[in-house]
Amino acid sequence: METKITSVRNEKVRFISLLQQKAAERKKSGLFAAEGLRFVMDTPTQFMQELFIREDLDLQIRSDLENRFPGIPVSLVTSPVMEKMADTRSPQGVMALVKMPSYSAEEIISGSGKPLIMILEDIQDPGNLGTIFRTAEAAGVTGILLSGGCVDVFNPKVIRSTMSAVFRMPFALCSDLPEAVSKLKDKGIIVCAAWLRGSVPYDSLSYLSGTAFMIGNEARGLTEELAASADEKIRIPMEGEIESLNAAISAGILMYEAYRQRRSAGV
Amino acid sequence: METKITSVRNEKVRFISLLQQKAAERKKSGLFAAEGLRFVMDTPTQFMQELFIREDLDLQIRSDLENRFPGIPVSLVTSPVMEKMADTRSPQGVMALVKMPSYSAEEIISGSGKPLIMILEDIQDPGNLGTIFRTAEAAGVTGILLSGGCVDVFNPKVIRSTMSAVFRMPFALCSDLPEAVSKLKDKGIIVCAAWLRGSVPYDSLSYLSGTAFMIGNEARGLTEELAASADEKIRIPMEGEIESLNAAISAGILMYEAYRQRRSAGV
Repeated sequence: METKITSVRNEKVRFISLLQQKAAERKKSGLFAAEGLRFVMDTPTQFMQELFIREDLDLQIRSDLENRFPGIPVSLVTSPVMEKMADTRSPQGVMALVKMPSYSAEEIISGSGKPLIMILEDIQDPGNLGTIFRTAEAAGVTGILLSGGCVDVFNPKVIRSTMSAVFRMPFALCSDLPEAVSKLKDKGIIVCAAWLRGSVPYDSLSYLSGTAFMIGNEARGLTEELAASADEKIRIPMEGEIESLNAAISAGILMYEAYRQRRSAGV
Repeated sequence: METKITSVRNEKVRFISLLQQKAAERKKSGLFAAEGLRFVMDTPTQFMQELFIREDLDLQIRSDLENRFPGIPVSLVTSPVMEKMADTRSPQGVMALVKMPSYSAEEIISGSGKPLIMILEDIQDPGNLGTIFRTAEAAGVTGILLSGGCVDVFNPKVIRSTMSAVFRMPFALCSDLPEAVSKLKDKGIIVCAAWLRGSVPYDSLSYLSGTAFMIGNEARGLTEELAASADEKIRIPMEGEIESLNAAISAGILMYEAYRQRRSAGV
């Protein structure tokens, strides 16, 4: 069931190119474009819609892809078509149309056990957001809540930086983060705001019970309103004359401190 | 002593544009180009050579710059000239020609007290390298040793990501990292390789005495040869299906674990 696409003006090619550029198109269709053999192979089958393989690609790779995703339509495309669809300058010759995973904020907030939740307010840099997803999966985070002002999770640069953690890490957009915080607190989850002027060193608290960390925008940090809703305003101590850490680094340090404490206590 | 530059073909403008693009030119001249008001203001006076200010920039900012760097030649430049010199797409209207800080590997290796040293092998991503510098200063790192295969520290993207830590963090290129490791070990410094297949969890060791962490290339990790030279191969535990952490995140977690232990022990 292979078809062939040779024209950059093909309707599907234009659709994918549009998905790469416009968050609104992604949102409307519930679809995004995945690039690169590694990422495509890591896509869970239930999200896979359609494969696009450059016609000159190694036959073994093509057959690996077809075996990995039986029954999924495959289009063989020319090199200019692949370039038109790809966000990267040197596309690897494999792309896919993929359904977005979707969760509700409620699912994340009401997770059982000892939740470890990241609350991200207006994270703007795609690399930072993707890296936070990747690190979050590694640190055992149970879910991520994002403000509407964050860069779109399905932006191609974010997707790439997640290293496919986007398929395994529950996340949800929250139009009202302070309300979500209030629900988390009702559930007994301790909400900690990363705050440059915070008085509590991040490593002086216990994160063994349910914990949420809030990280703010790269330039401005958390809004006063959201920070005020936290149980604790925590500070990552810094030597020297550095004014702040990178947002993904701050998130990584906090998540790994919680994970360190939990491993060390055997919970 | 203000001069005015209106031509993009001006010799100095072409020189700065070349510095922005070519590591070899930077190395030959010992100079690099700094961009943006914040970074330029943070440049220590002993490194400042020459200022370039867009002619339409606020007079208060111009006078702040001239007061911050008395005696330094200032050129007022037109908007096209500034664009020609700048690496960023929206230059802020302030650039500087800056002398490179320079240290020997020997200075870093023979630092007194309880050194905390980062050894970076073939870090390729400018954002990662700059972020490691920024985080290193915050975590109290005493010096950074880099392999010749790392991206140039004075690459404009690296420089930007350091948030001017590049002026305060001693660093040196090392043509022979295994030899440097051997010298560190002779000094009693414990050398720990970040190694995906390492058997020792990073948080099970003490970093209270002199410590060096080795971080490898984003895609390949450390070379076998360099990893084999370490006292310990340490692993950052990971949940889920993530294969590895981002290099700057790994470095951040290790540096902050050492810093956490040292603060907690009061050393």
